[in-house]
Amino acid sequence: MINSPERVAPDTLARVQAEIERLGFRPSRAAQSLKQERAGAWGLELNSAGFGRLGAILDTFLIELTTGAAERGSHVVPFTAADSAEPLPAYERLVASRVADGFVLTDTRRDDPRPAWLEAHRVPYAAFGRVWDDPGITSWVDVDGASGVDAAVRHLADQGYERIGYLGWPEGSPVGDDRRSGWVRATTDLGLAHPEWQATSTQSLPAACRAAAGLLDQLGLPGRSARPGRPGRSGPGVAIVCASDALALGAWRVLVERGLEPGVDVGLVCFDDTDIAEALDLSSLHQPLDRVAERVLHLLATGPDSRDPAGGLLLPPELVVRSSSKPAGNRTTRKEK
Amino acid sequence: MINSPERVAPDTLARVQAEIERLGFRPSRAAQSLKQERAGAWGLELNSAGFGRLGAILDTFLIELTTGAAERGSHVVPFTAADSAEPLPAYERLVASRVADGFVLTDTRRDDPRPAWLEAHRVPYAAFGRVWDDPGITSWVDVDGASGVDAAVRHLADQGYERIGYLGWPEGSPVGDDRRSGWVRATTDLGLAHPEWQATSTQSLPAACRAAAGLLDQLGLPGRSARPGRPGRSGPGVAIVCASDALALGAWRVLVERGLEPGVDVGLVCFDDTDIAEALDLSSLHQPLDRVAERVLHLLATGPDSRDPAGGLLLPPELVVRSSSKPAGNRTTRKEK
Repeated sequence: MINSPERVAPDTLARVQAEIERLGFRPSRAAQSLKQERAGAWGLELNSAGFGRLGAILDTFLIELTTGAAERGSHVVPFTAADSAEPLPAYERLVASRVADGFVLTDTRRDDPRPAWLEAHRVPYAAFGRVWDDPGITSWVDVDGASGVDAAVRHLADQGYERIGYLGWPEGSPVGDDRRSGWVRATTDLGLAHPEWQATSTQSLPAACRAAAGLLDQLGLPGRSARPGRPGRSGPGVAIVCASDALALGAWRVLVERGLEPGVDVGLVCFDDTDIAEALDLSSLHQPLDRVAERVLHLLATGPDSRDPAGGLLLPPELVVRSSSKPAGNRTTRKEK
Repeated sequence: MINSPERVAPDTLARVQAEIERLGFRPSRAAQSLKQERAGAWGLELNSAGFGRLGAILDTFLIELTTGAAERGSHVVPFTAADSAEPLPAYERLVASRVADGFVLTDTRRDDPRPAWLEAHRVPYAAFGRVWDDPGITSWVDVDGASGVDAAVRHLADQGYERIGYLGWPEGSPVGDDRRSGWVRATTDLGLAHPEWQATSTQSLPAACRAAAGLLDQLGLPGRSARPGRPGRSGPGVAIVCASDALALGAWRVLVERGLEPGVDVGLVCFDDTDIAEALDLSSLHQPLDRVAERVLHLLATGPDSRDPAGGLLLPPELVVRSSSKPAGNRTTRKEK
């Protein structure tokens, strides 16, 4: 009745509306959902591999997504899969019980069973991360790792660093391989290519420290024991681009242990711009998570049939320059320590 | 009908059940919610001050809460308040629209408007964190910071450290004051009390570094410039207990810069056992977030009228011992670096 007030006698309407006011009536989401057969909610799997771990950005993404969903009258329902390698039962359960109308995927990977399953069951979804297995699926938004690392290398070269190495993840992860390709491309373009100046490590700090130490040796900045005095600042500047902030923490630790100052003695740029980069004053590539969340919610709102036929959206990360990539001579004001 | 199959003729029942099977019918949460007037969901405010920041534990808590809620047939709905200082409108909106049946509070503080508002509106809630303003409210579970820090001090004393300082938050935060009181209590009990051996800092890394540097000076371990050689290991061992892992990152950075090895030259124990502590191999007080989540969900399930009259529950944190609080002589196996 209150949805069509023009069909009610004015007296009745006034009485009903007064009563509604008195009772503090609000539309019930449960009642609306039943009528519309919609929960008004998007499921988001909390994968402990990508969430709440060192250098993770998904917690920030969840805040952006939650805020953006509320602006569109919906909300986010996080869930966990009992077995993260077999996530489909958890997705199926949320759809079957109508707790979620669709899903936001993160941590997309090769041989990811989720997009095909969701397509087959006509469940709306949008991914933060490319759908690597099927170029025909375009319901995704991602951050362009290659162009980000490319920009980081050019920034370092502009600052006068000439020996630019790369500390990345072991080959085979699509995100890691994408980021590394930016280093290969930019150093080749700039005539600074030295394919041997790279090392790989998992996200573990001890492993990152070992890999960074080896890379610094290769780049001509060995440990303190090998050089009794203060390390020289002569010769072309050495810099390292890291595939993540967690790897950069390892590199930073080795630098500090060797008495080398980030920026002054060795340039350092990392990826993800997490709290670690901010805390250690490291230059980093910032993922525009607000725009990612907005795009994901837009894809979900427009529905599976009207998806942008132009394909997924690649957003460039923004390079946040801090003291770790400014040689002393290039600094106008020295940051307070 | 299918909720009372005994009231239906057997033939009809068989036909209906076959049809249900054919259509893959599942109970609709929306329909059940309407009938029960319940959303089956608990709201959780994502406060950016406590979530997704350096050393934050709420992301891990969210995973525990999400998993525990699913086991009880409910789910968690995260939300953000447009103004975190005035959160009530966001709570009101979730209740009015029936998106949430009640709330899990985190980041409880003095002059917190939420418990009184929720009580007045008879909205179920349970808090991770004491309800500091009203000892009569017992719907909370918290981690006993004082007993945790007390245990850390005793552990350091057992390991042979005798000059035990404290790096804490500025006075006035209930959680910070609680944790500091454990240091006061244990050092007094052990005859190691030196009230001047403390420093305070916010969670910001530069501030933590400055505070840690001053505290180390006071404790007799000045900077490298003041001591040309390798710092001496003679005299009673120096140790620092930190109120958080973020503060410990500042202390760790100063130690590394001064050429001091955590554990060997200076004992270090921190609080929260986040990814930072694990990455830097720092001993830390682990909050039992799985048990906190379980208790919160239990309080919500039993409802406001049958709340445990015994009062809120204080859980002791568990001390996770890593290399930062083991002097070299006390180590059976030296950890791989």
